[in-house]
Amino acid sequence: MHTFSQLTQMVEQALSQLALPASPNLLYAPMRYALQSGGKRIRPVMTLMCAEIFIQNIDNEIVNIALAVELFHTFTLIHDDIMDHADLRRGVPTVVKKWDTNVAILSGDGMLIEAYRLLCGAPNAAEVLKVFNRAAIEVCEGQQLDVDFELLPTISLEQYYEMVGRKTAVLLAAAASIGAVAAGAPAADVEHLRSFAYKLGLAFQVQDDYLDCYSNAEEFGKATGGDIIEQKKTFLFVSTTAVLKEKELADFICLMQNTTLERTEKITQVKAVYAKVGVEKMVHNEVEKLFAEAMQHLAEVNVADDKKTEIKNLALAIMQRKK
Amino acid sequence: MHTFSQLTQMVEQALSQLALPASPNLLYAPMRYALQSGGKRIRPVMTLMCAEIFIQNIDNEIVNIALAVELFHTFTLIHDDIMDHADLRRGVPTVVKKWDTNVAILSGDGMLIEAYRLLCGAPNAAEVLKVFNRAAIEVCEGQQLDVDFELLPTISLEQYYEMVGRKTAVLLAAAASIGAVAAGAPAADVEHLRSFAYKLGLAFQVQDDYLDCYSNAEEFGKATGGDIIEQKKTFLFVSTTAVLKEKELADFICLMQNTTLERTEKITQVKAVYAKVGVEKMVHNEVEKLFAEAMQHLAEVNVADDKKTEIKNLALAIMQRKK
Repeated sequence: MHTFSQLTQMVEQALSQLALPASPNLLYAPMRYALQSGGKRIRPVMTLMCAEIFIQNIDNEIVNIALAVELFHTFTLIHDDIMDHADLRRGVPTVVKKWDTNVAILSGDGMLIEAYRLLCGAPNAAEVLKVFNRAAIEVCEGQQLDVDFELLPTISLEQYYEMVGRKTAVLLAAAASIGAVAAGAPAADVEHLRSFAYKLGLAFQVQDDYLDCYSNAEEFGKATGGDIIEQKKTFLFVSTTAVLKEKELADFICLMQNTTLERTEKITQVKAVYAKVGVEKMVHNEVEKLFAEAMQHLAEVNVADDKKTEIKNLALAIMQRKK
Repeated sequence: MHTFSQLTQMVEQALSQLALPASPNLLYAPMRYALQSGGKRIRPVMTLMCAEIFIQNIDNEIVNIALAVELFHTFTLIHDDIMDHADLRRGVPTVVKKWDTNVAILSGDGMLIEAYRLLCGAPNAAEVLKVFNRAAIEVCEGQQLDVDFELLPTISLEQYYEMVGRKTAVLLAAAASIGAVAAGAPAADVEHLRSFAYKLGLAFQVQDDYLDCYSNAEEFGKATGGDIIEQKKTFLFVSTTAVLKEKELADFICLMQNTTLERTEKITQVKAVYAKVGVEKMVHNEVEKLFAEAMQHLAEVNVADDKKTEIKNLALAIMQRKK
């Protein structure tokens, strides 16, 4: 079995060899730029690991599926950055900032089409495409739900998971299952790997919500409290509104919607409510529960335990935010 | 064989039965809206006709391929209308105008993914997808070339065909060839149908350039001369710059780039140059030549002549702009 770092290198090398044409330059240069702007390549590595559980050799066709997953992910980032008016991603200008909206729309479209082109040569392509199509449309649904929910004072925990499930977990789950499908894994194992990655994705997102509020800004890589200022429907916010009652609930929602309070002051006040309801403990319990459920699904994949070592390491690395 | 109007009805019915989910509404409502905003359904009908040459029955799987072609076309319109800041299409507000840029980006993405989903169930799906992927990326290339060429004083006729080939002809060619591929047509016949539709698409575009300048505004459905005002690299412009020399060429390009001249005056002056070089005759000859080449490819498709009657009628209807 290859390690995470070996597989990351394999993905990087394959990405650098991806033969995108030179012209038209304003279509392909932004595609190359977005693909080479870093990222931890977690999703394609997940695809390769889930394939490697079932087959000896990772051939080019399997690598192409992993690339397709990364291209799809990059497509979503290019288009999301237009919608969010984002100037920076991973410390460098976004495609929409470096070029413009039109270039970002078109190069995103090109990226999605290129992802499909890579998938079409996959082993068990029909089944791989079926899984991919479902995940792709769900990611679009998740993006729209995120926007829809912005307009509501609060949402239920069920709605929260409906949204982050589609925005985050679905793609990690698809990355895992298409690797297994392409490697000819039995349906039950594919399903367990899908559930493993889905729960892992949810655990990651809940933890991400927490880190946005509580981590060391330098380690986290951006200013903390951003989700509070942007009034995002995070796990912290949603689970707090779920336990507050009547006047306290109304006051908290009012505080969250306040746009005149000074930034630091607002963050401090919101965090005081979070502390009062014990949000840290809620997050801790939820992440632990989701991660345990993920590992339970991995345990039920019907192969020898030693074949799961690298994938367990990957799951831990994802949660520990390791490069 | 079904007639054009029978097949159009078949496409309309299948489109109305396309089971798009209700929620999230801001993802799927714009998709439904864009699909139901009319259009002549030329491309999906071309797919069905090219399949019907080779098989007795048009089943759901073939219809789904035709729908995928229409969905792809609609995806390009939704995204193009963002890039062109277009408010109206076929007399109704564009998606970007009726909603906003973000909704138009996301519902366009959803449309493209839905097109792929429909294609994945096609007979000979692997081959169908291969043709479709190639066409899809070329359409993106064509859109970018169009933008790139806007910045040049003029382009060669070769560049003109490179651009309109990708923007217009490629998709009609793909529509024809995937119908034939799905119906199990021999490779030589697929290739002739592809070339037939490609040349037909070019003939249509050259004629369209002409009509934008010379047709009766009421019949054409919009004010004529728009391409002159927008300084588009049309066949008329490109073939005129190809025959003008030195000072006349410089003067003409200068006239075309003039943005201070009053609209009617500019159109009149440009048309005077067009008349001087005999652009009407050039267009006539070019359209005739391209259409003849298209029909020659159709003639070489190795099936009985009576099976080609409807497709010939379609080609004539396309050129005559018949509904």
